[in-house]
Amino acid sequence: MNKRGQAKEGAPLYRQVCEYLLNRIERGEWKAHDKLPSIRALADELQVHRLTVFKACRELADSGKVYVRDKSGYYVSPDHPQEAKADSGKKKIAADYSHMNALSDIHRLPARYQFSQALIDPNLLPNLYLSDYVKKVFDLYPKVMGTYSSAQGDEELRLMLSRHFREKLRLQLAPEELVITSGSQQAINLIIGTFLGPMDAVLVERPTYSVALDLFRRAGVRVIPIEITAEGYDLDRLEHVMQRDKPRLFYLNPTHQNPTGATVPAWQRKRIVELAERYRCLLVEDDPFRDMYFGEAPPPPFFAYDTEGWVIYISSFSKYIAPGLRICAVACREPHVERLIVAKSLADSGTSLLNQKIFLHYYTSSRLQQHVGKLRIALQVHKEIVEEELAGSGWEWTPPQGGLNLWVKVPQAVSVDALFRRAREESISFVPGHICDPLGEMQAWLRLSYSFASEEVLREGTRRLVQLARELDGSCSHT
Amino acid sequence: MNKRGQAKEGAPLYRQVCEYLLNRIERGEWKAHDKLPSIRALADELQVHRLTVFKACRELADSGKVYVRDKSGYYVSPDHPQEAKADSGKKKIAADYSHMNALSDIHRLPARYQFSQALIDPNLLPNLYLSDYVKKVFDLYPKVMGTYSSAQGDEELRLMLSRHFREKLRLQLAPEELVITSGSQQAINLIIGTFLGPMDAVLVERPTYSVALDLFRRAGVRVIPIEITAEGYDLDRLEHVMQRDKPRLFYLNPTHQNPTGATVPAWQRKRIVELAERYRCLLVEDDPFRDMYFGEAPPPPFFAYDTEGWVIYISSFSKYIAPGLRICAVACREPHVERLIVAKSLADSGTSLLNQKIFLHYYTSSRLQQHVGKLRIALQVHKEIVEEELAGSGWEWTPPQGGLNLWVKVPQAVSVDALFRRAREESISFVPGHICDPLGEMQAWLRLSYSFASEEVLREGTRRLVQLARELDGSCSHT
Repeated sequence: MNKRGQAKEGAPLYRQVCEYLLNRIERGEWKAHDKLPSIRALADELQVHRLTVFKACRELADSGKVYVRDKSGYYVSPDHPQEAKADSGKKKIAADYSHMNALSDIHRLPARYQFSQALIDPNLLPNLYLSDYVKKVFDLYPKVMGTYSSAQGDEELRLMLSRHFREKLRLQLAPEELVITSGSQQAINLIIGTFLGPMDAVLVERPTYSVALDLFRRAGVRVIPIEITAEGYDLDRLEHVMQRDKPRLFYLNPTHQNPTGATVPAWQRKRIVELAERYRCLLVEDDPFRDMYFGEAPPPPFFAYDTEGWVIYISSFSKYIAPGLRICAVACREPHVERLIVAKSLADSGTSLLNQKIFLHYYTSSRLQQHVGKLRIALQVHKEIVEEELAGSGWEWTPPQGGLNLWVKVPQAVSVDALFRRAREESISFVPGHICDPLGEMQAWLRLSYSFASEEVLREGTRRLVQLARELDGSCSHT
Repeated sequence: MNKRGQAKEGAPLYRQVCEYLLNRIERGEWKAHDKLPSIRALADELQVHRLTVFKACRELADSGKVYVRDKSGYYVSPDHPQEAKADSGKKKIAADYSHMNALSDIHRLPARYQFSQALIDPNLLPNLYLSDYVKKVFDLYPKVMGTYSSAQGDEELRLMLSRHFREKLRLQLAPEELVITSGSQQAINLIIGTFLGPMDAVLVERPTYSVALDLFRRAGVRVIPIEITAEGYDLDRLEHVMQRDKPRLFYLNPTHQNPTGATVPAWQRKRIVELAERYRCLLVEDDPFRDMYFGEAPPPPFFAYDTEGWVIYISSFSKYIAPGLRICAVACREPHVERLIVAKSLADSGTSLLNQKIFLHYYTSSRLQQHVGKLRIALQVHKEIVEEELAGSGWEWTPPQGGLNLWVKVPQAVSVDALFRRAREESISFVPGHICDPLGEMQAWLRLSYSFASEEVLREGTRRLVQLARELDGSCSHT
């Protein structure tokens, strides 16, 4: 992880060359002990600087994929796995999490005490109601299954959402300024594909949503961390970085942040929008937890302070209504909207119309508000159960004002990696903190999601987890 | 178009630099008449060869984005559109089709005579039946809306599909070797993201599915055309190109091909799989029209001849069942499956479970086979209507044995571009051939989709189109 982490601030180009060479090795074009073409030949072929190829070869040598012989060149290492068809048919699930999509790997491990999924317990969702709305949708739109949505998204849905945003959040939004995507993750992907190139600098919160981090890394951008705490960001540092690195965008999740639960105060929101304008940095505001507050409603989104079109607002309320629907709305101004529509049309030519219509009809119902109110209470109870069990354990956290996660620091003597392995054995899952850290550090932290497990499972699992940490702590101090 | 076309066989790197510079100009970092940093400074900043930067600047100068002054450097052109907020809120629809997603742009233009959409007329789809199956799904899985599918896709669906592929196409497939995506376009996107880097060579048919072409171009790969005719491919040329260019993959649509309607014969399928194996080239077989045959059923897919795991099979039957569901299955062997699952989990973390379950229950019903049988007849009738209207017009085509399109050559004196503009005025839409050509040529061709319009609209529209071409032909010969 650390090794990977280093690359992120470096040049992406040599890594592309690495990938290219590795691909050819994996395809068996060069077999074990074959000599690679000369640096000069490769540089000519790929039309890159020789130093770039050199750097790529060094990297491959460092990782053991190739070796150097008598200074005569680079040779393919014998132990490099060929495109083996070993165990074909049987799915191998990696037992560790040093993977391209770390979080997804963790989720694929079954767990009795599921604290790694920042999802709502399906039992808390309005399943019965929803099935009614589906039937209604078929009566209203008998041909819904035979019809594609436009790439931008169903017009009726966008009209409803623009009204909703105006009434609830005082956002002035035309239906033309909304794009419907299949979940917020797709939205982030489309934004990356549309606005970022491999040489761009991107700011992300530290810690942040690990899936977004994976997506940015995969895009080959330079990821620059901005610390987030219960007080928000250090604005001087933020301005300094914006000035120095000219980031193309800042990906932020400023309301009940994942994983910290922090909410950026209103005064900072206003100021950051000004900074974004001055330094021409897009603010990509991911806002899936806004309605899941425990006390007061959070401040308005960054988007509300933006008059110049620098904020792209990702609003993915379907998480706490019907995650299965995968409906997300992206709000932004021209010329960004038009570019996102093109990206969406290329990605999948439009989200399923059925899902959009179901969402539309449920979202406009009075049942929805009742459901959201109940869900807030349920989540707060869940959060308090975990806090009760952690009290007196030596674990530290800042109580979140909303959201689905507790971001916890374990006592110094406990290794989170060791705890993760032990917890896996006991069928307890959580997210190790370093996965959420753009620098791959934060080794003492972990994320506990309290939204998915039932109350009893939550209590029992947290108790067990604390006990496991105690045992590890004890064994450490004795060795 | 031609201008763009030239770049595709060249180096992608300088184009990345172009993009990067253009981005900064568009963001207003450099304004009109500002001097760009020196070639040396940019090369250092981006860690690329100076020649690459030079080439990028030349390209920008050629396209008028920057200008050269007294050999002292490059300056931003005054007429370059700044990040203007002009007409914000109002959606501008480009009247031409020289766009990133050419086909999508055409589809956004409303048309009374809709011959550009290769989609089934919604009236031919089993809308009523489907609504029954949806209700069944809710009874069977009351929590379907609250549940995410796994990234790979619903297990029950994959199990059913693996049985189906075994029984209908004799493909030996485990459920673990299938990945469910939201439509075939997403499948192509995931495959590009997983297996291709910006420096790779990719083979595509000429002509081909223009959306795939857009996706490959966007990925910055080198696109190499392979001619397809009613007889299939020229295998000597194919082998030569595989040997010379070492393509990473060949994207093909060998059954009732879009746009030509051609079907590659069985003997070629077998042989091409052998070539793919020898030259380590993935075959990406897109197969959405297999069941839409008019005479005999087509030969088995390439996938059936593959024993070494070089074929990735994209099967998107939802097109003629319920396009609105957006369900597509990708079949491939290890280690490709595992990599595609990661890509899917990053793209959107899984296709909507509801849609998968509806598809599952409808697909296993006896009603489906009845529907498909009827649809085949309807499509054949549609095709024949167009052929009747074109007979004696001087237009040329090879009658397709299946699929949704007629690939037509207009008489020499007619310009397809001029015809397109005239047709638009009469609310007739079709796809100009050059959009489907990786070389941007094929100026005398066009694609007429006969699947979407009703019989009367089809007859009337084709008649009008032929008449328009006659008028253009006449006006040409007189000037």
